[in-house]
Amino acid sequence: MSTTSRRFRLAARPVGLPKPSDWDFGEDELPDPGDGELLVQITHISLDPAMRGWMNDVPSYIPPVGLGEVMRAGTIGTVLESRHPDFRVGDHVSGALGVQSHAISDGRGLVKVDPDVAPLPVHLSVLGMTGMTAYFGLLDIGRPEAGQTVVVSGAAGAVGGVVGQLAKLKGCRVVGLAGGPEKCAHVVEELGFDACIDYKNEDVGAGLKRECPDRIHVYFDNVGGDILDAALARLALHARVIICGAISQYNATDRVTGPSNYLSLLVQRATMTGMVVFDYAPRFAEAAREMAGWMAEGKLRAQTDVVTGLEHFPDALNGLFTGQNTGKLVLQVA
Amino acid sequence: MSTTSRRFRLAARPVGLPKPSDWDFGEDELPDPGDGELLVQITHISLDPAMRGWMNDVPSYIPPVGLGEVMRAGTIGTVLESRHPDFRVGDHVSGALGVQSHAISDGRGLVKVDPDVAPLPVHLSVLGMTGMTAYFGLLDIGRPEAGQTVVVSGAAGAVGGVVGQLAKLKGCRVVGLAGGPEKCAHVVEELGFDACIDYKNEDVGAGLKRECPDRIHVYFDNVGGDILDAALARLALHARVIICGAISQYNATDRVTGPSNYLSLLVQRATMTGMVVFDYAPRFAEAAREMAGWMAEGKLRAQTDVVTGLEHFPDALNGLFTGQNTGKLVLQVA
Repeated sequence: MSTTSRRFRLAARPVGLPKPSDWDFGEDELPDPGDGELLVQITHISLDPAMRGWMNDVPSYIPPVGLGEVMRAGTIGTVLESRHPDFRVGDHVSGALGVQSHAISDGRGLVKVDPDVAPLPVHLSVLGMTGMTAYFGLLDIGRPEAGQTVVVSGAAGAVGGVVGQLAKLKGCRVVGLAGGPEKCAHVVEELGFDACIDYKNEDVGAGLKRECPDRIHVYFDNVGGDILDAALARLALHARVIICGAISQYNATDRVTGPSNYLSLLVQRATMTGMVVFDYAPRFAEAAREMAGWMAEGKLRAQTDVVTGLEHFPDALNGLFTGQNTGKLVLQVA
Repeated sequence: MSTTSRRFRLAARPVGLPKPSDWDFGEDELPDPGDGELLVQITHISLDPAMRGWMNDVPSYIPPVGLGEVMRAGTIGTVLESRHPDFRVGDHVSGALGVQSHAISDGRGLVKVDPDVAPLPVHLSVLGMTGMTAYFGLLDIGRPEAGQTVVVSGAAGAVGGVVGQLAKLKGCRVVGLAGGPEKCAHVVEELGFDACIDYKNEDVGAGLKRECPDRIHVYFDNVGGDILDAALARLALHARVIICGAISQYNATDRVTGPSNYLSLLVQRATMTGMVVFDYAPRFAEAAREMAGWMAEGKLRAQTDVVTGLEHFPDALNGLFTGQNTGKLVLQVA
């Protein structure tokens, strides 16, 4: 009794923003799970800027998605059938099962998630890779101290919104950067940032000067480009810059724009460090417990932007790069 | 009985490479030293790429040299008269006394140097700020381990030549970058680097790929620009990049070129850190003792390029930016 899975395969390497023809949307017949395998019905798919990088055929921190392969993505699903000793029918699981409605898995890389701890999409946001990225990037690399100023770009985005809230929890002054007055209002009013600079409507350098009188001790960068440059120009002595992503550059068809103010690192004896969340996997469970505790205490909010319908995947993904979502973007399969 | 000092004052803020008209070369009558002061005859002046930055009216790690002020420089001199309890006539001293033949000092920032430990110019190179920069940048920030690959740009320059020798002392594979076959031969044959890439005559990326089969664990950057970019593209996992200087950019009249490959920091979970040698002042004496020991054992060579005649200061300084010197450039006053 086979199962039909609807899935998106990578059909072509995109140039710039992915086009519809870069995807092959169709159906596969999945075999029954073999011994040690399980069949998962995917309910929620994590949409992340990093996915754009995985589509390029260049060496990176993980191999690119191959042409013809199901697009890689973090997912949440429900176990439909199991011949695996660790999983039972009805279990909710999280893992990188890809942009599809069903998957066969051997259980490697899957963890069970508890819908009583938080709604399922939250296991892809604050309690998932998004939250882990914010947690380890800010706390392990940024090491903010109470009273210091933390600036985060992409503040209305999935990672940025968590970074700012964690920095507030640590007693910092927190300044966000976001595009448009609605996003800025959300960041300040809903997420509790001290200030937010609307990079679409004001000069970022002037905004940082106004909002960061003690300069910037920790800068968490999700965007790259001119915003990174403006933040570098405002660093404090011994500042820490976390390079988490560069969403402004992922669809660049020219050379990436390098930060021309990088010599601020010298002037301020500062450090710029790149991070990849997967390196912290041994500590995910510990961090998720702490984050769940903060959520239960009302100190940390999960902000989820849900798009329903697997077929909307291409547009929803592109929306990440055109600034359309606020919070964690999750594709609900059905 | 006053003393005449010949000196270079900064007459104008240079645009690009300094022009003769940016300098005021003339004479001053110095008063006799007052109580607690001493009169120093300057014998050797350190010429360093960083001096170009000090001429710009922009905030940096030290204030710019003011228009009309004697140009700042590290110097070695001999005490001619002393009304200071810590210094006697005939003492050799080191300090930032500027581009001039004589200076009155209150002793602050002056240290005595011993010509029996090393010839006087060496107290401006391996045993001076040059050597301290190499020592703390490489060992404290770079933390190279035996068997790792260390790459240094400006390898035939003052700092780069010491960095490479120290890395060899630590058991590393050491690859230099220098301009022209003569400099490359010097770096390998005289300084003991494992290899040197001639950036003027070959593709730096291809050279780094050939000479760094295990990629780059520590990159010590003195130059910035395209060479920094090529090194970033070849980083190893958890690599450390030390930003010591950016000689290719100091005379730029356009915007500084930022490293467009900075996202290698993310892919390789690497760190880029800026350094200013003055931060390590409390540990200079300890480092100089260790470096003097290595010199005495023949494990570390001082390479000094001496230009004689104070009047040659403007051309000698500019030579740093046009690649004319090998090793530490020292201006011998007379």
